[in-house]
Amino acid sequence: MIEHQVAGLFNPRAIALIGATDKSLWSASTYANLMSYGFTGPVHLVNPKGGTVHGTQAYPTIGDLPDGVDLAFVMVPTHAVLGVLEQAADKGITSAIVLTAGFAEVGAEGARLEAEIVALARRRRMVILGPNGNGFINAARSITPYGIGIVPPLLRGPVGIVLQSGALASYVLGFARARNIGISLMVSMGNEAMIGLTDAVRYLVRDPDTKVLALFIESIRDPAEFVAIAREALAAGKPIVALKVGRSQKSESIAKAHTGSLVGDDNVVDAVFRQCGVIRVDALEDLVMTAGLLARTGPLPGKRIAFVTASGGTCEIAADRADDERLEIPDFAPATVERLTRILPSFATVQNPLDVTGYVLVNTNLLSEALTIVDADPGVDIIVLATDLPREQPADEATATSDIDLARGTAEAIAACTKPVVVMGTTLTDITAWGRHVAEAVDFPGVLGGIHHTATVLGRAVAWSDHWRKARNVPAGPAELPPPLEVDAVPGSTWTEHRAATFLAAHGVPMVDQQLASSAEEAVAAAERIGYPVVVKLAADVAHKSDIGGVALGLAGPDAVAQAFAAVTHAGERAGATVHGAVVQPMRDSGVELLVGVIRDPAWGLVLAVGLGGLWVEVLQDTALRLLPVDHQEVLAALRELRGAKLFDGARGTEKVDLDAVAATVVAIATVAHRLGDRLESLEINPLLVHGARTEALDALINWR
Amino acid sequence: MIEHQVAGLFNPRAIALIGATDKSLWSASTYANLMSYGFTGPVHLVNPKGGTVHGTQAYPTIGDLPDGVDLAFVMVPTHAVLGVLEQAADKGITSAIVLTAGFAEVGAEGARLEAEIVALARRRRMVILGPNGNGFINAARSITPYGIGIVPPLLRGPVGIVLQSGALASYVLGFARARNIGISLMVSMGNEAMIGLTDAVRYLVRDPDTKVLALFIESIRDPAEFVAIAREALAAGKPIVALKVGRSQKSESIAKAHTGSLVGDDNVVDAVFRQCGVIRVDALEDLVMTAGLLARTGPLPGKRIAFVTASGGTCEIAADRADDERLEIPDFAPATVERLTRILPSFATVQNPLDVTGYVLVNTNLLSEALTIVDADPGVDIIVLATDLPREQPADEATATSDIDLARGTAEAIAACTKPVVVMGTTLTDITAWGRHVAEAVDFPGVLGGIHHTATVLGRAVAWSDHWRKARNVPAGPAELPPPLEVDAVPGSTWTEHRAATFLAAHGVPMVDQQLASSAEEAVAAAERIGYPVVVKLAADVAHKSDIGGVALGLAGPDAVAQAFAAVTHAGERAGATVHGAVVQPMRDSGVELLVGVIRDPAWGLVLAVGLGGLWVEVLQDTALRLLPVDHQEVLAALRELRGAKLFDGARGTEKVDLDAVAATVVAIATVAHRLGDRLESLEINPLLVHGARTEALDALINWR
Repeated sequence: MIEHQVAGLFNPRAIALIGATDKSLWSASTYANLMSYGFTGPVHLVNPKGGTVHGTQAYPTIGDLPDGVDLAFVMVPTHAVLGVLEQAADKGITSAIVLTAGFAEVGAEGARLEAEIVALARRRRMVILGPNGNGFINAARSITPYGIGIVPPLLRGPVGIVLQSGALASYVLGFARARNIGISLMVSMGNEAMIGLTDAVRYLVRDPDTKVLALFIESIRDPAEFVAIAREALAAGKPIVALKVGRSQKSESIAKAHTGSLVGDDNVVDAVFRQCGVIRVDALEDLVMTAGLLARTGPLPGKRIAFVTASGGTCEIAADRADDERLEIPDFAPATVERLTRILPSFATVQNPLDVTGYVLVNTNLLSEALTIVDADPGVDIIVLATDLPREQPADEATATSDIDLARGTAEAIAACTKPVVVMGTTLTDITAWGRHVAEAVDFPGVLGGIHHTATVLGRAVAWSDHWRKARNVPAGPAELPPPLEVDAVPGSTWTEHRAATFLAAHGVPMVDQQLASSAEEAVAAAERIGYPVVVKLAADVAHKSDIGGVALGLAGPDAVAQAFAAVTHAGERAGATVHGAVVQPMRDSGVELLVGVIRDPAWGLVLAVGLGGLWVEVLQDTALRLLPVDHQEVLAALRELRGAKLFDGARGTEKVDLDAVAATVVAIATVAHRLGDRLESLEINPLLVHGARTEALDALINWR
Repeated sequence: MIEHQVAGLFNPRAIALIGATDKSLWSASTYANLMSYGFTGPVHLVNPKGGTVHGTQAYPTIGDLPDGVDLAFVMVPTHAVLGVLEQAADKGITSAIVLTAGFAEVGAEGARLEAEIVALARRRRMVILGPNGNGFINAARSITPYGIGIVPPLLRGPVGIVLQSGALASYVLGFARARNIGISLMVSMGNEAMIGLTDAVRYLVRDPDTKVLALFIESIRDPAEFVAIAREALAAGKPIVALKVGRSQKSESIAKAHTGSLVGDDNVVDAVFRQCGVIRVDALEDLVMTAGLLARTGPLPGKRIAFVTASGGTCEIAADRADDERLEIPDFAPATVERLTRILPSFATVQNPLDVTGYVLVNTNLLSEALTIVDADPGVDIIVLATDLPREQPADEATATSDIDLARGTAEAIAACTKPVVVMGTTLTDITAWGRHVAEAVDFPGVLGGIHHTATVLGRAVAWSDHWRKARNVPAGPAELPPPLEVDAVPGSTWTEHRAATFLAAHGVPMVDQQLASSAEEAVAAAERIGYPVVVKLAADVAHKSDIGGVALGLAGPDAVAQAFAAVTHAGERAGATVHGAVVQPMRDSGVELLVGVIRDPAWGLVLAVGLGGLWVEVLQDTALRLLPVDHQEVLAALRELRGAKLFDGARGTEKVDLDAVAATVVAIATVAHRLGDRLESLEINPLLVHGARTEALDALINWR
């Protein structure tokens, strides 16, 4: 989509509601939204009968509209949409929101109709949001063509929201309101006939009113585009937080049914998000609060957290949850302990997390005083302050004033801190109207709801910040990659070990020493050169060779090798394969076995999978994924993600592994795969044997597309 | 604690506040609480200066009080508490809440003082709650001697709450209020000088006003008592929900510092809770909501969940989260699909989870109609209905009435269902005063806050219900256990393999065939009988024999055995051990290796640990724990909990394991350990080798206490 057209859509100067009628809740809501939230341009109504609609004069046709309308909000019946868009184009209208349903989401006939309106729009250089979407709420610019009533107040702020679900929008808005988090633009995508998720995301990434993006995603139709825009967001320091459904088989099948697009493996989605710095959350609450936090703090400086609370119980829950989220709670520096000891009652335990004790009821400044001291601790990156805004408006003026004064004191202490201060309520309860009033009066920072969610949100925000910092240190621009590889392979064919191995070895993959022998004599000669014991394997493009007797292990002398040659080639002939002889290679029996594969995900393309071999993969599905291309650091991170990563440190007597050497080999494999590009269906090295500093691929398999 | 004394404490007829003064916030709050929440008995104040306190006449001494006071609420300075309690006893007062701090929580001197007041109370047959606690709120009986202001309204209901944290109480109460969940009795434990956690829990388990218990636990001082009362609760069908901190090292050390009591291994706590049916949660929100749900529904009939919503996005999030929590979302029966198809618009997808679509805005009864149809589906155990109470009170009467009518329709549809209906809001936002009003007006059921927490809460509630059902099928009364075992072991000594093996074999543990040989000739004879290949191991009480050359594996003939005998015994002598000869046993080299251990947890006593051997334990710490004694079903469940449990089904070519045979062996081992009781420090079988139906312990180690 052309970028300036998308910008035009979200920033119309005059709007016409087509199909406006008092009988429709949608029509009434859209009109009321435009009237109530500050839209300054004209709003015209079109109804075939003319007359008065929503208390104002309606035009009978689009042709009757005054000039200058640049957005049509279309609510006419499905079959009338095409004609309406044609008339809108004739009138010079450049954007349309189609609220009407009954298109691709209902089946083939609807999809045909949808294709027609898209073709028309393309021809007439219009853009369409929807159909089957509720429109958008541009809170930053007070433009609210949105089909469902917006509950006041509409809070303006730095969070941009894109939702692939109409019904969730009201809840997301409502929750943001309950957290006192303001939005810039919220878009309800609908069917994405023209404007897709990535178009809306790109607009927000480049929108100066938006600091953080929050997305609800069912399906990503243009994965390459998504990756590009996510990387742009990371480079711009704008976090993208996403609740992407489809983790379970059930929800994946619902999403597929909804959108009709390829969903791809959810583990790949996870890997891609991690690679591109997209923060993935599981809960709508965390979606909104993570965005709200990062919009306020920007990137966080580290993961060493100090908790300042007035409750031992809060400290303990926070410590447990921080541990879950891989946050650190360092001990305070001696100077901090000394200074805290001076202000705290003698029965307080001076430690991190800090409980200033119930003495806070006597000295209401105690939390703020402790905060200021902890802020000076050099070992702390972020301070979490457990406090909350007041809830009920006091009946008497004096108490109200003292509520406000107390909040002001806290807000000032926070503002004076040199480090980010995250304010955390103990449980997730609403910020009430009175709380919002107090917050505005004293410029109180955002409050995260509850210890549990604060830990989740902070963990995600810290991880994103770390990713952002690392990405900043990588030189700008895409890395220089070697050119595509030409290869003479029959599409759809499979190359097994010798052929695959020779090819991979020629392109920098350290294959185990091996030799193709076409006779028993050649096999023995190869074994003598390689050194006993050796393995003799059938050379033929047959999968699962050991199942047909095509592999002989641990051969200790020439007689055994000669016999094995006869046996494995015979096995190949029996199985009806074209036998090229047998491959001789050294017998390896110790070291850590890895599996390195490159597979083609239907949605995302070539994906690298690394895992520990054998039982680790079979029983635990312990693999880490990365979208290609990958670099050394990315591969190192993937290897360290494995649950069995301890093995690399030399568990149970195995030698410590040179992880850099392993990563270099994996990068070499991934680079070959990436250079093969569209030709490749999958590539598997199983096992990649690692013994200390030696890394050798023992077996390889390539499937051509 | 004598039960009727605890009951007396929580149900006083007349209360005296000792140390009442206008200058103290605690005193003012306690008095206001008693005056505001319906306490009908007399409340007397004692202040040495007499005069007017809190607007009423105070008595100068306890002796001046009228007769009949049965609870003293003590707020005098620390050093004065002992004297006050003495005077209270003289006056015939039988219970005291000591709010005053400065006792065991501040160190040795405070602990001494605390011991003195306990001794006095015992002598005078008084009971004390606290010190350093805020008292209790008996909402069911309107008795509220509680030191911190209670924010109105105080909602009465079926949830009993016990907190080992004073400061969290207000937040837990506040969150319960925001969820419209009422309480029976809430107790703030304080230092537990006399009344302990288990005393309060026992009271609530037997309290007819309490249907579910919610606990915040730092430390369980009397584990055996806790287990007994938890089992009683399970038998009575009263769920106990607990947020037990100390999962992380950090919080464990805080809890230890706070309470000074043994904490024990948190994994053991987890196992014990699971065994006794205590529901463990991580978040205060889940603590309150799980209790609130089960109080309303009682035990749930199964884990097959139908979701009825008006949002595809909600369906997808719910499906993902249900999967996380091991809930099932079955397909609807054909009749259900047919009936739903008739009422839903053509563009709806009729499936579970069900989205009735935005058409609900047109037909506001659509959700209720769908609910009624789904209720008749025979494959569904529980229905989750996504809806919420209204939030803002409408300005006009007509809208308010229509809000109430809509809620009434939903409430009636829910009430007409034959299956439990769980109502779920989309995000966790407060139930407002208006929502509470509507709920009361139409008897609307409790609403769980948000999809995310609903899944967590429902998962826990379903698991508890399952546990409860299974426990019901076990014959009442403790199982008959064999009597204690007498054994002639030196306390603190270690028995290694042969000695341990002989002992265990004599008590029903299937040890591998083995024979102690005192000469090379005897070793060869043993090997001939057993059959080659064999293993020869040093017989001496030395740990880690293989490290000193005390183990010879895979011996294929008599010469090798004779040489090995000489080598291993020589190795033993070189190591300075008392050598008893060598043990000969068959060489085993295939099968699944298990580790079966019994360890003594400092808090909980003897605990069984089962795990997969080798890397599984070393790298993944993949073990399952159970408190002794255990039965066959319990052991089976523990084995199935292992992350590597797939191996039992015969992964990677290993034979399928006879899990019943394994469980029988583990029960035999656990029974020996249990019968050894206090004598035993630890017992380890490593490995227990399982090959199909054959289960053999290859090695054993016993440490005596």
